[in-house]
Amino acid sequence: MMPAQITSTSNPQVKNVAALMKKSRARTEQGLFVVEGMKLFRELPAAWIAQVYVSEGFASDGPMDEVRRVCNPLVVSDRVFAAMADTCSPQGILALVRQPAWELEQMIGRAKSPFFLILEQLQDPGNLGTILRTAEAAGCTGIIMSRDTVDIYNPKVIRSTMGAVYRVPFFYAEQLEETVMRLREKGFLIYGAHLQGSVSFECPDYRVPCACMIGNEGNGLSDSLASLAHQRIRIPMEGKAESLNAAVSAALIMYEAYQQRRGD
Amino acid sequence: MMPAQITSTSNPQVKNVAALMKKSRARTEQGLFVVEGMKLFRELPAAWIAQVYVSEGFASDGPMDEVRRVCNPLVVSDRVFAAMADTCSPQGILALVRQPAWELEQMIGRAKSPFFLILEQLQDPGNLGTILRTAEAAGCTGIIMSRDTVDIYNPKVIRSTMGAVYRVPFFYAEQLEETVMRLREKGFLIYGAHLQGSVSFECPDYRVPCACMIGNEGNGLSDSLASLAHQRIRIPMEGKAESLNAAVSAALIMYEAYQQRRGD
Repeated sequence: MMPAQITSTSNPQVKNVAALMKKSRARTEQGLFVVEGMKLFRELPAAWIAQVYVSEGFASDGPMDEVRRVCNPLVVSDRVFAAMADTCSPQGILALVRQPAWELEQMIGRAKSPFFLILEQLQDPGNLGTILRTAEAAGCTGIIMSRDTVDIYNPKVIRSTMGAVYRVPFFYAEQLEETVMRLREKGFLIYGAHLQGSVSFECPDYRVPCACMIGNEGNGLSDSLASLAHQRIRIPMEGKAESLNAAVSAALIMYEAYQQRRGD
Repeated sequence: MMPAQITSTSNPQVKNVAALMKKSRARTEQGLFVVEGMKLFRELPAAWIAQVYVSEGFASDGPMDEVRRVCNPLVVSDRVFAAMADTCSPQGILALVRQPAWELEQMIGRAKSPFFLILEQLQDPGNLGTILRTAEAAGCTGIIMSRDTVDIYNPKVIRSTMGAVYRVPFFYAEQLEETVMRLREKGFLIYGAHLQGSVSFECPDYRVPCACMIGNEGNGLSDSLASLAHQRIRIPMEGKAESLNAAVSAALIMYEAYQQRRGD
């Protein structure tokens, strides 16, 4: 059995991992985030890895050869690992990962006819994770978020992306209105999901360079952002339903776009 | 100010509310569930109400006249209310509600051409709540669940339905295969969402009496249930995405069905 190299929960590295788990600010300052579990480790681009930690249990029973092929993990005692991990039943492996740095021009260059999703002040980590996961499946070119959207590097978001966080380009816009204006100037059509939309979400043409804006769970799009849309679109609803879950709304629009674009 | 009628957290009613919040078994035995907050109270059918509790704070500052028009609430001290409530910032009103008892024949009778969603062993409360919310908006006739699906009366499910739990008919099937067989015998077309589906989810005809089966988050549909489908349908995916969130899959299928049925 391999002896643990870190056995104290007061070790500065252990404290730092815990801070990176819990605090958005620590993640931003260090440009790092944490992923847990073998599935998310396997999908991780090797160049993004900053440091990998495994528990003693994982070091003796886990697939260490596979891990060592891509990095040199630090072994920590099981007790220390449990203190670092976010989940109740930790799998014994976690990685500190460098945050990707996408820019608008780069994202635009990824597709002949890009399709972006723009999120304003989304608050629920599960919703954001699900949106990333769906965005990958629907071939969305990238995601642009307002600064006050929930932190994409929150461990709950990371888990619910199922690895899409590595593969779908995204960035936080300092001034979301400015970014939308830049897209408009570049000829993008801007759609806004809105309860008072003038047309159903299947009507717009998504085969041209375009972007769709989705607003906050409780309040929808702000008036200032909605006013930048070329067209406000609505999702038809029966019964007394007042609105749909934000991840569901985003999924319906992204899949409509995907269906139109596949038909090209 | 109205004096509290219950001031002790060891009062049997208080203990019972806490049990109904936490334990699926207590809910089943008593045929009750708990809803919290004014929004869910307002939408509650009056005939379903068994008992309403409000905090002293709510009794002095809340819309008590509105509450009294439909029921005779018990006032409990703020401390007792906090002990009963499931949320961190309780709104001061919660109701014990009778569980509805839908049967298959009743649900079939609700529409000329019914469309059901069938859920096998769904585990995540947020997913189930979101599915109910979407089902109402998409005009789904009803939801049929396997016995081992997460408890629909779990407070997390109730919250995320946004009131749809009152309006979308549903029941737990003792033997899901038997229920599916009964639907087949009645001429329903049965579709099953499956990663190895033979056709894309937009292909089937949803305007006839039909039902679509969605499986567990991790494993998808069991082979025994999938074998009862007339057609296995898949949702196309780009990239390395292996699957979609269950609530997203259900939403895409329900909205495709809704779109076809609106076109009638």
